[in-house]
Amino acid sequence: MIRFDSDYMAGAHPEVLDALVRTNLELTVGYGNDPYTAEARRLICRAIENANAEIMFLVGGTQTNATVIDGVLARHEGVLAAESGHIAVHESGAIEASGHKVLTLPHHEGKVVAGDVEHFITEFYSDETHQHMVAPGMLYISQPTEYGTLYSLEELKSLSEVCHKHDIPLYIDGARLGYALCAPNADFKLADLARLADIFYIGGTKVGTLFGEAVVVNNRSLLKNLFPLVKQHGALLAKGRLLGVQFATLFRDGLYERIGSHGVRLAMRLREIFGKAGYEPIIASTTNQQFFRLPNTLIDDLRREATFDYWGPRGDKESIVRFVTSWSTTDEDVDRLEALLGAQ
Amino acid sequence: MIRFDSDYMAGAHPEVLDALVRTNLELTVGYGNDPYTAEARRLICRAIENANAEIMFLVGGTQTNATVIDGVLARHEGVLAAESGHIAVHESGAIEASGHKVLTLPHHEGKVVAGDVEHFITEFYSDETHQHMVAPGMLYISQPTEYGTLYSLEELKSLSEVCHKHDIPLYIDGARLGYALCAPNADFKLADLARLADIFYIGGTKVGTLFGEAVVVNNRSLLKNLFPLVKQHGALLAKGRLLGVQFATLFRDGLYERIGSHGVRLAMRLREIFGKAGYEPIIASTTNQQFFRLPNTLIDDLRREATFDYWGPRGDKESIVRFVTSWSTTDEDVDRLEALLGAQ
Amino acid sequence: MIRFDSDYMAGAHPEVLDALVRTNLELTVGYGNDPYTAEARRLICRAIENANAEIMFLVGGTQTNATVIDGVLARHEGVLAAESGHIAVHESGAIEASGHKVLTLPHHEGKVVAGDVEHFITEFYSDETHQHMVAPGMLYISQPTEYGTLYSLEELKSLSEVCHKHDIPLYIDGARLGYALCAPNADFKLADLARLADIFYIGGTKVGTLFGEAVVVNNRSLLKNLFPLVKQHGALLAKGRLLGVQFATLFRDGLYERIGSHGVRLAMRLREIFGKAGYEPIIASTTNQQFFRLPNTLIDDLRREATFDYWGPRGDKESIVRFVTSWSTTDEDVDRLEALLGAQ
Amino acid sequence: MIRFDSDYMAGAHPEVLDALVRTNLELTVGYGNDPYTAEARRLICRAIENANAEIMFLVGGTQTNATVIDGVLARHEGVLAAESGHIAVHESGAIEASGHKVLTLPHHEGKVVAGDVEHFITEFYSDETHQHMVAPGMLYISQPTEYGTLYSLEELKSLSEVCHKHDIPLYIDGARLGYALCAPNADFKLADLARLADIFYIGGTKVGTLFGEAVVVNNRSLLKNLFPLVKQHGALLAKGRLLGVQFATLFRDGLYERIGSHGVRLAMRLREIFGKAGYEPIIASTTNQQFFRLPNTLIDDLRREATFDYWGPRGDKESIVRFVTSWSTTDEDVDRLEALLGAQ
Repeated sequence: MIRFDSDYMAGAHPEVLDALVRTNLELTVGYGNDPYTAEARRLICRAIENANAEIMFLVGGTQTNATVIDGVLARHEGVLAAESGHIAVHESGAIEASGHKVLTLPHHEGKVVAGDVEHFITEFYSDETHQHMVAPGMLYISQPTEYGTLYSLEELKSLSEVCHKHDIPLYIDGARLGYALCAPNADFKLADLARLADIFYIGGTKVGTLFGEAVVVNNRSLLKNLFPLVKQHGALLAKGRLLGVQFATLFRDGLYERIGSHGVRLAMRLREIFGKAGYEPIIASTTNQQFFRLPNTLIDDLRREATFDYWGPRGDKESIVRFVTSWSTTDEDVDRLEALLGAQ
Repeated sequence: MIRFDSDYMAGAHPEVLDALVRTNLELTVGYGNDPYTAEARRLICRAIENANAEIMFLVGGTQTNATVIDGVLARHEGVLAAESGHIAVHESGAIEASGHKVLTLPHHEGKVVAGDVEHFITEFYSDETHQHMVAPGMLYISQPTEYGTLYSLEELKSLSEVCHKHDIPLYIDGARLGYALCAPNADFKLADLARLADIFYIGGTKVGTLFGEAVVVNNRSLLKNLFPLVKQHGALLAKGRLLGVQFATLFRDGLYERIGSHGVRLAMRLREIFGKAGYEPIIASTTNQQFFRLPNTLIDDLRREATFDYWGPRGDKESIVRFVTSWSTTDEDVDRLEALLGAQ
Repeated sequence: MIRFDSDYMAGAHPEVLDALVRTNLELTVGYGNDPYTAEARRLICRAIENANAEIMFLVGGTQTNATVIDGVLARHEGVLAAESGHIAVHESGAIEASGHKVLTLPHHEGKVVAGDVEHFITEFYSDETHQHMVAPGMLYISQPTEYGTLYSLEELKSLSEVCHKHDIPLYIDGARLGYALCAPNADFKLADLARLADIFYIGGTKVGTLFGEAVVVNNRSLLKNLFPLVKQHGALLAKGRLLGVQFATLFRDGLYERIGSHGVRLAMRLREIFGKAGYEPIIASTTNQQFFRLPNTLIDDLRREATFDYWGPRGDKESIVRFVTSWSTTDEDVDRLEALLGAQ
Repeated sequence: MIRFDSDYMAGAHPEVLDALVRTNLELTVGYGNDPYTAEARRLICRAIENANAEIMFLVGGTQTNATVIDGVLARHEGVLAAESGHIAVHESGAIEASGHKVLTLPHHEGKVVAGDVEHFITEFYSDETHQHMVAPGMLYISQPTEYGTLYSLEELKSLSEVCHKHDIPLYIDGARLGYALCAPNADFKLADLARLADIFYIGGTKVGTLFGEAVVVNNRSLLKNLFPLVKQHGALLAKGRLLGVQFATLFRDGLYERIGSHGVRLAMRLREIFGKAGYEPIIASTTNQQFFRLPNTLIDDLRREATFDYWGPRGDKESIVRFVTSWSTTDEDVDRLEALLGAQ
């Protein structure tokens, strides 16, 4: 069986796992006050070209979003997000559980546009009853989006501008950031995110680690007491050095980019072989998630030897499916999928 | 340097790490729906002799406590706990952050007594203004306690009885449960906890895993929607099988008990050597945490070659310190400490 | 100046105020344990034809919605509501502040339809990822709606059926219920609400009292500890009898209906005079709120002698405005408005 | 029956009620944007001698405390309070419901002392694990306290100093402030509170109004978005002018002081007559609440013609009781009580 369901099906990239094995019996203090975590912080600061950023390591994406958003927003504020955004759909109400409304914007293949943000904010403050409504207190976007699409540098600049014009911070969810950085059409670097976003996070779980997300706080005045906040959100790992060891490995010798490139290259191959078989992707994703509309008969056939995500029916005879690659996908996996498609 | 600061200084027990390495490249579905997690559930149900318990794996202790307590309590209820309890002191307000007051009881070397619980509840309901106060909705205890002490089976029975007499659930925090089960004076088994407690958790982080706590819900009517609740609390691990693999290893061949026994045996040696040097433990702990009152001069001397926790001064010349053992502590570590003490 | 901005511009209906004056110097116990509150409970139980309902009096609408919804929902659940619903728009995030997401449904002149509720729930549970999403835990509707429109008895039955088929409670916000009961097309009675809704509230603030809303809990198993919950939400009035005195007055001799009829009759006159002037209402409201699309020049003229709500521009030359009547609106007010319109 | 149970048993002071009656049929805009509320703000600013204070009117004490504390604290912070403080005991967990722990200090007849605050804060920050604990983010005191006792100006200065030395705000709950200002030993004025406290509230419910508390924000940087916060807490009154009318009446011609003086004078008479009968008050209260330890037989006798609060038994034969006066207590009430006591 070849598996394309998601990018969190394997354990850690072998180099990351080796680092954990190598350091396993060392004794260090807990909660991220160890030398490995310090090294990982330094390496990330170098990679993002911002020596003054605060870096904090958390375990998973939902807890990271909930912690950051709760820490940044005032009580009466909500967070703007695409209606397709992870926080708006797939976090079981974690944002609301900490007291904040998710204010949704229309999405365009998962992306929000600066004009819609501008429109929302100006409409909000021109409404005479706005004091009875939830004020927009920050903007959340995902890079890449939940649909695998990318914001261009120009789009990021526009979003950053509209946010800062209205004095709200820009926060970027980078759960799959490695695959965005290495996309064929990527025209931005980590340093751009550090410059344009007030806070963002560099995803590990889907890009080579067992688990872990690195929060980068560029605008430190926004999140002054991150440590107790992380603890309060149940997001502080006792053996914090496990996060340090893993992220230091990702950022010591360019492993993060190697993983991203590998995943994206195989995703592009996947587009190609589906294209050859007559199925163009339905979303302009240039990262490791690819979406197709396939005949149900084909889906049934493929399922005998492959797994992938089912997103729902389109009419009686076709459905939308998602194929995901990662560092653990191999060329052989894609070859086999190609053979399966060719055999139809 | 020999290190006795805490029981979360090393990575995982080698057998646990081996299991992670062995399964690393396998591809499984996420969020705990994999075969390893299923196996771990079965093994734990067997160990606790309750085939009907619901078992859920979370990452850390604070998030486990916050999730369980938030899920069990009604909005107007609080949780009873010793004033020394972890949830009352060291969780950065995670319980309050989900809306609930921690109602504190006096502690006796970290333990609460059934009489105090009874007294609190009857006083509460006899107060004419109790509808304006936070109602006691469950009892939280730690086994072993934050001071390393143990509840006897008799004490557990009394607490279970008083709770059920007043129709509130009993919840046991077992962050260090392995060291309790193997204490010289332990007269209870896992099956007793399954019988007496409505919910408890079996700690992994401090007893052999990289991270992870296994929540055991014996009274399933109390926590009907654990999965979305765990997700909402940011406590759902994407690669859930990492928890399954680790806990299956702990419970497949008695590793959990072996780890507990090892840690406790070295803690007992540690008591002995301090006793020989003239320093009796100040708390009757029979588990892996030992507390001593030492002259500051001795503390300074020991610190040149050993690390341990400083708990605060007692007068001008002495202080309280804590020494902790774990699966990773060796006889050689204790020998060296003995030599250091002997050299004084 | 004649004023049609809202239905909370005057104090209390004179009969209500008289009752407050008459009882002012009496001394009674607090928090609603007084005889007036008991009488008001009895009168409401009689009016709704449900002797077993629990009746609780709160001060305002937002706090009532937040308290009821927070008390009914489990932690992982959200509340379904029209996207135009008061809780979705104009409560400053009070629902989210207590931890719950508002799950929005399309609205049809402020109303939700049973088919959309059915569709939401079945789609939700057919989604394989629904455990990561906020579960629909109750349905909130307003009668009349924020647009002044009414649910017919048939529509209420359909909504009640779809809710109970899926085992979620139906909750009705009756902030302006008095004006709904007396609408020309009203085919339902209070007793129908008591039969069809699990919980609803009878608004006082906009229907004759200084303040106050009467929550009716028909399905008492849903809200078992209302008193401490109300207290916790800061919604418990110390001098609770003020609510009892006012609601007893409203329900002793049919005052609630008289107020409703008066407000609706004047609203119908208002529709008529606008119609004569060539402006048909843009929403099929049969209650005390009426919406028109007027030329901006007319709006400017009217404003010299009348006040009303501005809802926003429609193109360059017209705008939407709202006119509201209440028990305090007089025929003379409407006559004067007619004269103003006739003078154009 | 003469009634001394509490100070919220009657309606409003006749002058306050007259003002409500007089203005009842006027039409004004809602939510506190009316001229009466503006006037009340001006009058209070004058009374406290701080023209720059922000004044906001809420309905009740619990909601006021919850709103202010939630608005001031960061997510990881808690509020320091006497263990006898209203927020610590009698608000059904309203503070915790908004996510914050109440950090308790020892009380001395209801008062906290600056030394204990200093000690708590310095101990907290000297604890190496304080990042895992709830940080003290503000100090809450009541003036007068729940036991009727008063802070002297000197004590208030010390508390203000220790708070500001450690950069946490001082917040004063003035639910019964009128009775404090007029106590025989009162050596402070409203202007002193405005100078020493960052925020305080002037209670109306117990001092002459039907309901209502006036929050005074002296340090406006601490609570920047009070309006939406009040709305979110369900504490915004639609007919906001009712609060304005009442507080303007209290502060226009010294009514607030007259009410306070009256209540205190009768409380002092009450002390005297109990003293004559051989029962000295058990607490040094100089305000409108008086506490006595009485034989149960006397309590039973008194209860035939008087009501008062029972606080609990002391041994088999005696109990603690509370007698409360207010603006509505008359000299005749006290005469009758004297007669009752004399008849024993």
